[in-house]
This record gives sequence, C-alpha cells and structure tokens, in this order.
Amino acid sequence: MLNYNDQENWPNNFGKMQSPINLSIDDQNKYEEFLPISVDEFYQLNNEIDDGTTIRLTGMGNATVFNREFSFQQIHFHTPAEHTVNGKVAPFEIHLVHKNNIGQTVVIALLVQIGNADASLQEIINSFVPNKENDVSINLTEWIPNLANGFHYAGSLTTPPLTENVEWVVITNSQMTVSQNQVDWFAKKFGHNNRKCQAINNRNVEYYENK
Amino acid sequence: MLNYNDQENWPNNFGKMQSPINLSIDDQNKYEEFLPISVDEFYQLNNEIDDGTTIRLTGMGNATVFNREFSFQQIHFHTPAEHTVNGKVAPFEIHLVHKNNIGQTVVIALLVQIGNADASLQEIINSFVPNKENDVSINLTEWIPNLANGFHYAGSLTTPPLTENVEWVVITNSQMTVSQNQVDWFAKKFGHNNRKCQAINNRNVEYYENK
Repeated sequence: MLNYNDQENWPNNFGKMQSPINLSIDDQNKYEEFLPISVDEFYQLNNEIDDGTTIRLTGMGNATVFNREFSFQQIHFHTPAEHTVNGKVAPFEIHLVHKNNIGQTVVIALLVQIGNADASLQEIINSFVPNKENDVSINLTEWIPNLANGFHYAGSLTTPPLTENVEWVVITNSQMTVSQNQVDWFAKKFGHNNRKCQAINNRNVEYYENK
Repeated sequence: MLNYNDQENWPNNFGKMQSPINLSIDDQNKYEEFLPISVDEFYQLNNEIDDGTTIRLTGMGNATVFNREFSFQQIHFHTPAEHTVNGKVAPFEIHLVHKNNIGQTVVIALLVQIGNADASLQEIINSFVPNKENDVSINLTEWIPNLANGFHYAGSLTTPPLTENVEWVVITNSQMTVSQNQVDWFAKKFGHNNRKCQAINNRNVEYYENK
C-alpha cells in the first residue's frame, strides 16, 4: 500500500511537471474572468471503494473545461489538502478526475475549508465499508461553483505512476465546506494522505478571478 | 546523432501512447465537421537549423486548436511520412509544433503528396547551410488549409525523449505539394528519418471530415 511517510521512495522516473504544487498569483498569468468550466450533467456516484489510502467513488457526469468536453471518471479525497495557496494548507481537498474522448485527463480540485458538515460527504462517510467496494447512489449537485475562481496549470497525478499528462483546475472559491468531525473521520481512517508540494520548475500557473 | 536504423535501442521508458501510428477511420469516432483549427497569425520563420536528422526552423505564429490558443514553436520535416493512413505511406510529412501558456504541446502534421514544387519549401532548401544555424525570413501562408480534414489523437514526440504530452492533429487534405526533386533532396541529405508506427493500444483516434 502507498506509504505517505516514505514519499522519497515512490517511483520517480518522471519529469519536471509534477503535482501538487504551491499556488500563487503571478500578475503575468492573471485573468479577470471566471474559470471557463461548467458542469453539463450532474455527477452521479454509483460505486464506492476503500482503496486503502482514501475513498474513491466512480460514476457518471460531464463537464466542459476550457472549451472541451470531458467525462467524469472518479472522485477521491485528501486530508490535508495537497495543493497549497501561498503556503497555506486547507484541511481538505477533493479531486474530480475527468477524461476526454482522446484520453486527456483533467482533474478539477476543490480546496475545502472547515464549516458546516456537507450532506453528500456525510452520505459517502455513512456508506463506507472497510476493505470493500459497494454500490451507492449519491448525487453531487453543488460542489463545483457555477462561477469558479482558481488556478490552471499542467501537472501530474499525485499518486504513482505520477503520470504527467494531467491538466489541473484548482478551485479556490467553492462554497462547499466540511465539518471538523468529517475531516477527523478521514484522518482517523486514512492518516495524512497528501503528497508533498513539488518543484514548479519552468511552468506558468494561470489564475482566474472575477468578482 | 539519432540513428533511424536502430530505433529499437532508442530510450524506452515511455508508456502506451506513442507516436506515430497508423491512422484509420473508426465510425465511432467520426465527425462530419472540419477540424476545429485556425491560423490566427501567419507563421514567420526566422531561424533555420541543420539538426543532423532534419531541417528545423523556429519562428512566430499563433493558432487556435480545438478551442485553445497555441503559439508556434518550430517546424521540421520527415521523409517518408511518419503517420500512415490505412497502411499507406505519404512521401513527406511536415510537423508544426505548438505550445500553449501552460506548456501543453500540439503538433499539427501535414501529410504531403508529390505534385508541384512548393515555393516556401524551396526557399528553405535554398537557405540550408550544412552543420549551421542561420537567420532566414520565410512566410508560410498556405500550408495549413482553412477547411482542414484529418485525424486527432493523443500521442508522443516521435524523437527522444518521446514525451507523451502531445496532442496530434494530422491533416490529410493539405493542398500543399512537394516535387519529387524536393523529396529527393531531403532523402539525400538526411536519409529516411521516419520513426516506425507504434501500437495504438487503448486510444481513440478521431476523424474529422466535411465536404
């Protein structure tokens, strides 16, 4: 099983575009508009898996991301967050993994703050069966904001094989919150499962914000 | 220098999305529309390089490819063509390499048939200085058709490091032709410099054609 206390020994035949990274606003790459993403068909989760290091759910849904259509593949959770913003670590990060018809991957990430418990996340917690895969029927309706602000860059998967074919959209203004109890539940089940921030190297990180 | 007679020994720590491939029309992935590409700013070539295995020229230009903006990086030539169509090998293939702001790569490839000599290509041939890099001033105006048909898939660079972060647009209806003399000139200078077709594996290859 993946050991988050031994990240230095994860397979490392990869390049210079790894994820996660520390995000910050670069005036050269700042756009005064919303992130061009929209959910075309709400996500329906129908399978829940204990993968040992997180909960992963598969299902259906469609999104348009930077003017191309993607199908939702799976969602999973990290605590604390993997992407940081100006060095600050959010308590929770959600990854919605998508693919398009030619196999390109986009991950929509939500950086989540502590607040009210989220009902859909509670349904996921309540449906969890250790070491098992089980059928569920959960709708996600309001996790991705209609008017999203955040970052856009090219990186990698954050777990092995750490493949560098991944386009990241990291949303910073999701209204979805989680309770401390919900975060504690994940931390107790899985421990910390955040990969450390990687070198940005020669990459541009775009920031989109409209008010 | 890269040895095309010893491709089996090129570095091979890559995945299952290599290029070139043999292209064919798959009814499940056929679109009755033109390829959504347009040249926003004509390509201006200003530097010509003998890289030992081909001529490479750098310059400026912009294109919109599948609804995203890309900057032209460099152009180079292969003889015979690298991508085949239903097993057929064109005599010449041109690669126009582009990048966008977050570092994603798109290559627009032209499969070129024998016909009239092309004036811009002749200018490139006439400007060639062996083992040197030299300044040129060449405009490409009509190589990319306004109404393009062809293939779209995710693959790799076709020379080491064979990086798999490349989106391919292979145009099959370019009106640009090359003369047999022009092809012979390249073959004499560089020999055959086409990488063999690679396994398609689990990839969808889209085909766009409008009449």
